[in-house]
Amino acid sequence: MISAKMIKMTEGGSAIRAMFEEGARLAAQYGRENVYDFSLGNPNIPAPEKVRESILRVARETDPMELHGYMSNSGYPEVRAKVAASLNRRFGTGFDENNIIMTVGAAGGLNVLLKTLLNPGDEVLVFAPYFLEYGNYVSNFDGVLKAIPANIAGNFQPDAEALRAAVTPRTKALILNNPNNPTGVIYTGESIKAIASVLEEKQAEYGTSIYLISDEPYRELAYDGKEAPWLTGYYRNTLVGYSWSKSLSLPGERIGYVVIPSECDDAQLIFDAAVIANRILGFVNAPSLQQRVVAECLDEQTDVAAYDRNRRTLYEGLTGAGFECVYPDGAFYMWVKTPGDDREFSERAKRHNILVVPGTSFACPGYVRVAYCVSHDMIVRSLPAFRALAAEYGLSK
Amino acid sequence: MISAKMIKMTEGGSAIRAMFEEGARLAAQYGRENVYDFSLGNPNIPAPEKVRESILRVARETDPMELHGYMSNSGYPEVRAKVAASLNRRFGTGFDENNIIMTVGAAGGLNVLLKTLLNPGDEVLVFAPYFLEYGNYVSNFDGVLKAIPANIAGNFQPDAEALRAAVTPRTKALILNNPNNPTGVIYTGESIKAIASVLEEKQAEYGTSIYLISDEPYRELAYDGKEAPWLTGYYRNTLVGYSWSKSLSLPGERIGYVVIPSECDDAQLIFDAAVIANRILGFVNAPSLQQRVVAECLDEQTDVAAYDRNRRTLYEGLTGAGFECVYPDGAFYMWVKTPGDDREFSERAKRHNILVVPGTSFACPGYVRVAYCVSHDMIVRSLPAFRALAAEYGLSK
Repeated sequence: MISAKMIKMTEGGSAIRAMFEEGARLAAQYGRENVYDFSLGNPNIPAPEKVRESILRVARETDPMELHGYMSNSGYPEVRAKVAASLNRRFGTGFDENNIIMTVGAAGGLNVLLKTLLNPGDEVLVFAPYFLEYGNYVSNFDGVLKAIPANIAGNFQPDAEALRAAVTPRTKALILNNPNNPTGVIYTGESIKAIASVLEEKQAEYGTSIYLISDEPYRELAYDGKEAPWLTGYYRNTLVGYSWSKSLSLPGERIGYVVIPSECDDAQLIFDAAVIANRILGFVNAPSLQQRVVAECLDEQTDVAAYDRNRRTLYEGLTGAGFECVYPDGAFYMWVKTPGDDREFSERAKRHNILVVPGTSFACPGYVRVAYCVSHDMIVRSLPAFRALAAEYGLSK
Repeated sequence: MISAKMIKMTEGGSAIRAMFEEGARLAAQYGRENVYDFSLGNPNIPAPEKVRESILRVARETDPMELHGYMSNSGYPEVRAKVAASLNRRFGTGFDENNIIMTVGAAGGLNVLLKTLLNPGDEVLVFAPYFLEYGNYVSNFDGVLKAIPANIAGNFQPDAEALRAAVTPRTKALILNNPNNPTGVIYTGESIKAIASVLEEKQAEYGTSIYLISDEPYRELAYDGKEAPWLTGYYRNTLVGYSWSKSLSLPGERIGYVVIPSECDDAQLIFDAAVIANRILGFVNAPSLQQRVVAECLDEQTDVAAYDRNRRTLYEGLTGAGFECVYPDGAFYMWVKTPGDDREFSERAKRHNILVVPGTSFACPGYVRVAYCVSHDMIVRSLPAFRALAAEYGLSK
């Protein structure tokens, strides 16, 4: 009786629930300290102390009407101006508050952008492996998600030639996630240039506008001095979605923004439509108190060094055990090649009390994602289990 | 190039923007104190002090990982349990946390429910006058909104016979807003019984499930000891959407919940699908800090007496000036019959520095909505302007 689409999803959704339940079952049976849950992208570093101080200060000092009242559906102008100024300082851009819309996290922002852009049947491209939720977001607006096969030979950099083959006159957008979930790869400036060049070429060929939607919740999680390129400098029709979920460890608060640069095709129309989309999709506006909090914390950083330490320990441990891993430059995920089927591998991992997500869940079989936003201690304790698993597959060195 | 639906909306949306701009223009020209803006449903009573205390306490005492981390997409189980217990105390129901999903306000909740229920072409009924945004929410999921004409003769109570004529085999839901925006009317127990009886009859006739979606942001704003009936006691297939926007003056925080009673047809399926809808629509979950805050403030109330005082002063003032008004039992809106076209009336009102919303914006021409969630002082100061307006129409007594 209810939505046919949603009935199908309740069936599909049970895989994730099954993973949760399995984790709880294992913890009950073996003790929580003996279960190694690498399945979730939930930051384990607490929010910076400045976040707490800002909450206390704004709650104490701000008039409740101003703190909790309605504002423009795009967010507080002064908060948007501060976000714009911060981007300008970091990336040499020239944004102001009229380029920024505060959103209910990046998930909210992406839905707002897709609602704004898509006509039914419009195509949205992604490079595999990708966060499968993009498919749901695109489907919300009757768009068609088309995945470009993983560039395994090119170490998971996006492949511009494969992009060229995938673009059609119906292509409305390409979603790029950099640093990447699930691979931990940072797409290089060179890769981005090649992509931009293909998009420019195809726009000219078809007489269309193709928007590059940059989903950047992991921007600040980058290691060894690397940094994800800021895309509006590479391609005119770039839109950015951002969230403080990872960078300030605020995933539950649902706070982020989108950037709509003035040089985009139809920039003003997109901005106006996106503000309306924010309202009619039911977000209305980004949570008001958190808008003021993040505006005070724009220069705060999470403890990237801790994630880096996890990264090194896990990489050494897993490669030492014989696994082949992509060396991650960003985010907090290790992308591990599985000897054999990835779903079977993750099932066998469970028997060692290890929980990881099969690559199939990112449209890229043959790998698993190991999320290292966990305690360093758990990583160390898990290594014997990983070694035992490697031995089962005859990988041990 | 962008979404054709959204382009159309940016054109329509300019009416509201024009109202804002007109208000700003009038304020600049005549001084803010000489402009009487009754156009917005933004509470003017600050949030109870307990809200601030709760924010300070949870920010000080809660581990940041717990306070700002991910939880189930349905919300914190302990918060949902407290909401359920509070409803049980007030309405004698038997809910638990498995009947409650925390949402990004009522707008988020309604979108979640409609995403869950609607197949393309499904019909959703509303009684005019109604909050026009419902049409956008239904359209988000390719449903068809059908408005049942206003029951002017019946003092804007919902008309069960008109409902009977409107239900078809494609009717999936009826949205009811009680107390009502824009009329301020509270639908009586008798009206609700008649509606429930028609829905039961039509369900049986067509072999369908018709869900009654009760949108209740104004529940606690009721006067003279009146109260909106709690609908799950009247009709089995009731779903409730709630928000603390008005009751705790937190409209900017986007915090509310939906109730999915266990006795509904397909209750478990609806619950599971709604949790997924919450995620894939991009809400992910209701803002985490505010979930904990409202859970501590379930027994708090806004200053209803202040709204009541506004209501009486405005009603006396407007009827004394010769206007015909619906005597409002709830919400904070006065529904005023216009002598002549409502859009022309609201234009003429502007010349007296009065801003009101034409009934046409609620699918009910011939009336205007006067929002009295404003300072009592402004109401008193506005009355000479209303009298001058009445005189223009030859209404003055």
